[in-house]
Amino acid sequence: MKRLAVALTALFAAAAASAEPQAPPARTPASVLAAAAPGDWATIDPNDLVVMDLANGGRVVIALADPFAPVHVGNIRALARAHWYDGLVIERVQDNYVVQWGDPDGKKPLPPGLTRPAPAEYSRSAEGIPLEPLPYPDSYADRIGLWGAFPVAESGGEAWLVHCYGMVGVGRDVNPDTGTGAELYAVIGQPPRALDRNIAVVGRVLGGMPLLAALPRGQGELGFYARPADRIAIRSLRLATDLPPAERPRYEVLKPGSDAFRAWIEVKANRQDTFFLRPAGALDVCNAMPPVRHVVR
Amino acid sequence: MKRLAVALTALFAAAAASAEPQAPPARTPASVLAAAAPGDWATIDPNDLVVMDLANGGRVVIALADPFAPVHVGNIRALARAHWYDGLVIERVQDNYVVQWGDPDGKKPLPPGLTRPAPAEYSRSAEGIPLEPLPYPDSYADRIGLWGAFPVAESGGEAWLVHCYGMVGVGRDVNPDTGTGAELYAVIGQPPRALDRNIAVVGRVLGGMPLLAALPRGQGELGFYARPADRIAIRSLRLATDLPPAERPRYEVLKPGSDAFRAWIEVKANRQDTFFLRPAGALDVCNAMPPVRHVVR
Repeated sequence: MKRLAVALTALFAAAAASAEPQAPPARTPASVLAAAAPGDWATIDPNDLVVMDLANGGRVVIALADPFAPVHVGNIRALARAHWYDGLVIERVQDNYVVQWGDPDGKKPLPPGLTRPAPAEYSRSAEGIPLEPLPYPDSYADRIGLWGAFPVAESGGEAWLVHCYGMVGVGRDVNPDTGTGAELYAVIGQPPRALDRNIAVVGRVLGGMPLLAALPRGQGELGFYARPADRIAIRSLRLATDLPPAERPRYEVLKPGSDAFRAWIEVKANRQDTFFLRPAGALDVCNAMPPVRHVVR
Repeated sequence: MKRLAVALTALFAAAAASAEPQAPPARTPASVLAAAAPGDWATIDPNDLVVMDLANGGRVVIALADPFAPVHVGNIRALARAHWYDGLVIERVQDNYVVQWGDPDGKKPLPPGLTRPAPAEYSRSAEGIPLEPLPYPDSYADRIGLWGAFPVAESGGEAWLVHCYGMVGVGRDVNPDTGTGAELYAVIGQPPRALDRNIAVVGRVLGGMPLLAALPRGQGELGFYARPADRIAIRSLRLATDLPPAERPRYEVLKPGSDAFRAWIEVKANRQDTFFLRPAGALDVCNAMPPVRHVVR
């Protein structure tokens, strides 16, 4: 198959006819990852992993970001332990915006013990969140960087998770409602940065984005499925720690601050491989989300 | 249906019990568009519209951006007039990256008259592209703004189209190949800004993005469909001017520089409606792409 690919093919001509010494091929993001030391990767705590299995056979795995929304994350853990999401649905797919799941009829009783955060968990103190900073400007914040598996913005001592592709937030009604965690959404398009600091962001989809993002768009208002039959059923939603050990997925993240991570950022911002003529010389926070890998044992 | 929506519901409580005068509801992007004068909209020249009809019944409409890639756009017009794309396929869907269409086997002879641009059309002089500027920083360029229906970046007297969601570019092999226009792609995820100034961007999808973005992701390398049977056939690709007048789609764009456009930008950057507590105070170029509407006669 001929591949006039938009990207990143590794078609280095061997230059066999030349006796000149050849420069080694430039590093690529993929080659930096392949060369990363085992210690540059950190295993994500299974207590922070949510596993959502869909009735269509798909699996979505989400990493929770406790420090940014501890009350909402606690609610999500409680809902998972109560098996509350089981049998509910993906009810909304709005193109270039979000996929949302929960209880479209709002009729399923919530388990006891859920709480609403006060104040709202839309942002937090930047103290205690040591960022691996990106040295490039952001349109919205004084400072951007990475923490754990997550993209973070900072301004005036305040830190918040950024609405990048694949980030997960807590659906809510209008202000001052903050939601419970019984409705969740994942970003499937242009980062909707106007939502930053207006919604509690609780995590990031690590596995299954291609399934969520390829769902048919809803034809109703705001992308809700107009016909209940179009909704995608959730078979189960569990914390990884509540799955039998042999069934727990294992994910690793390239640690921000590790040598390999810094090399990856440098190479992504300054592409020198054959495809590229003009390295960008910069990287935005959503294109700098720490690489994650699924470890199959 | 209960809608704990992530966005923009217009649920203003009537506050019937209060005798206090109520402030008028804050303007929203939608209310600004609804109030725009007819003269704030410009009809897109049908000679700049490409209509791609898929065998599955879907229609994709693309606006061409001649001044940024005149040779490639000329090639695309020639390919359309030769009916060259008819019977070819969407061959690649890579999650969070691009949908690509063309001739995966590279066997279909090209029509005569195609040319390769020299120099490459990856950027151009900023002269002659009067930007409606956005007064916010960008991670990659000195200056960002809008021109026609398109997002544009500028640095050092150079201007280029930005790889936002829905933008269309010319697939190519590695440097110094520039492609012909026989392979095209549309962005379906995070803006891949590292491609800016490394590929000829030729236009923007105005209609049909929900179809393209919801296609199943390819399981082959780089998201190519591993099985030819998975490809989506292109029934026809035409310039709108080559369709019978009654079948030509009509699209209008909110003119950058118009009063309504400036109000829309101001309101998008500073949301005051009930859902929002913390207006962002900024807007990135990909979230500022000029609104477009399909006019059904």
